[in-house]
Amino acid sequence: MAKFRVNILGSGSAVPSLRHLPSCQIIDFRDKLFMIDCGECAQLTMRRMRLKFSRLNHVFISHLHGDHCFGLLGLLSTLSLHEKGGTLTVHIFEEGARMFQQALDYFCRERSYDIKFNIIKPEAAVIYEDDGLEVSTIPLKHRVPCVGFVFKEKPKLRHLKGDMVKFYNVPIKQLHDIKCGADFVTDEGVVVPNARLTSDPDPVMSYAYCSDTQFDPRLGEVLKGVKVIYHEATYEDSNAAKAAPRGHSTAREAAIIARMAGAEKLILGHYSKSYENEDQHLAQALEEFPDVTLATEGLKIDLL
Amino acid sequence: MAKFRVNILGSGSAVPSLRHLPSCQIIDFRDKLFMIDCGECAQLTMRRMRLKFSRLNHVFISHLHGDHCFGLLGLLSTLSLHEKGGTLTVHIFEEGARMFQQALDYFCRERSYDIKFNIIKPEAAVIYEDDGLEVSTIPLKHRVPCVGFVFKEKPKLRHLKGDMVKFYNVPIKQLHDIKCGADFVTDEGVVVPNARLTSDPDPVMSYAYCSDTQFDPRLGEVLKGVKVIYHEATYEDSNAAKAAPRGHSTAREAAIIARMAGAEKLILGHYSKSYENEDQHLAQALEEFPDVTLATEGLKIDLL
Repeated sequence: MAKFRVNILGSGSAVPSLRHLPSCQIIDFRDKLFMIDCGECAQLTMRRMRLKFSRLNHVFISHLHGDHCFGLLGLLSTLSLHEKGGTLTVHIFEEGARMFQQALDYFCRERSYDIKFNIIKPEAAVIYEDDGLEVSTIPLKHRVPCVGFVFKEKPKLRHLKGDMVKFYNVPIKQLHDIKCGADFVTDEGVVVPNARLTSDPDPVMSYAYCSDTQFDPRLGEVLKGVKVIYHEATYEDSNAAKAAPRGHSTAREAAIIARMAGAEKLILGHYSKSYENEDQHLAQALEEFPDVTLATEGLKIDLL
Repeated sequence: MAKFRVNILGSGSAVPSLRHLPSCQIIDFRDKLFMIDCGECAQLTMRRMRLKFSRLNHVFISHLHGDHCFGLLGLLSTLSLHEKGGTLTVHIFEEGARMFQQALDYFCRERSYDIKFNIIKPEAAVIYEDDGLEVSTIPLKHRVPCVGFVFKEKPKLRHLKGDMVKFYNVPIKQLHDIKCGADFVTDEGVVVPNARLTSDPDPVMSYAYCSDTQFDPRLGEVLKGVKVIYHEATYEDSNAAKAAPRGHSTAREAAIIARMAGAEKLILGHYSKSYENEDQHLAQALEEFPDVTLATEGLKIDLL
């Protein structure tokens, strides 16, 4: 079982090429799949990567440019032909919900499952929560309203110290409270501080998806504490002048954001089709930040 | 230069699989490209097959099911990012024109070329003509309004008999009329019949694309004279009961249509994803008709 894995389905920019497909990632969090962006051919790449349609219940669309959503209609239709059940939620800007609802009503009238649209806004907000995970939007600076998504594990329970639990004879029914941080009071009224019964929980993993955006130093602040950052890197230095006017970043700028945020790892993607390879992107990012991975179709990155 | 070539970009049915993409073909007629149907990933397959975007000016959509048109928006957007010029005409039912126009106005506002919608109807009609080619619609019997497309070379000029032309001293300016079938009148008023000056023109090639349709014997009549027929073959005999209720055909039924039409060659496609291979489709079609080819992604069939 994947604990927290990033699957790269598409790492190209607007125009798909023979090397890269348009944007799409799938977060596999404890075997639930969360798709981020859905460029054309996403459903086919899901199949190639053996990511099960039945485990997908949430799709997050960062903004309404075609290379981030032209695969959605095909995916949603195919899910119905696969007789998916339950509910799938598409987190999307209002205009997108309106358009895709209309298209679904025409092309996919009889559905085997419910499609719910959760309207997101270009602001910081928690948009999804379950027992173990929280997903938030963060505003990005692009040519149209656009958000990034931060996937963050919920704080984990503290680890019991088995010998101490036995020593104080803690009843089983109190163990959960103690894992949550409560002190223990013995029958004699003695307070045993939690720190004597438990050790620190495992650290919390977090992942931020930031595409598309121009270089925005505020993002370095907003992402403070996030461990792994995916940041678009449409260009490398020789095309730096094109980046900001088009609402995009260079690989170096992405690395500066990762450094500002104090991240542990940076993943680059959304490469312009004009490059024959991304060697320069990697080299230039490494000048600013030590741990850089180039996203590429089919790559699976285990964060835990 | 391709004289008249069928390129198979997608030969699957509704659900793309690891073996087949949704429907798409490109007719290369004397280096002009004509796309028929545009399932998801068509633009990527065009690139893989090295079919040049710049040579594509017509797209024909047979009906408004997603597996025949979900690649259109991505293709039209990419053409603009490639700075295509001129005009591209999409031949499509009215409802499709309305929907795609709306989507283009949102996702592809600034275009480098003009997109024109030519509204087609579920009836027999000539919808495109140029010096060498004529394209017509033929109504098919599917669950929604649906047409096939017949691509037919225009009648060619008769071949001059060089020795006879010289013998009668035919002036150059009259040669075109004679190639078109005119008799020649000498200065002395003697009529030289055309048959003495020319031999028969090359035969005219024709190709019919018939997807999606249930078995319809009338189609065998309508297609009389067409040399090469692509006919959908979603199922083979063991699933024959599913075919008509779903508006589809078996491979055997496709072959019966080809036989009724007196065609020279049959191409099968639009296979249900439930098959591991199409051996049965081929074998059963061959029991009814002698020259059968299985369409498959990447296949190029030269008709001339």
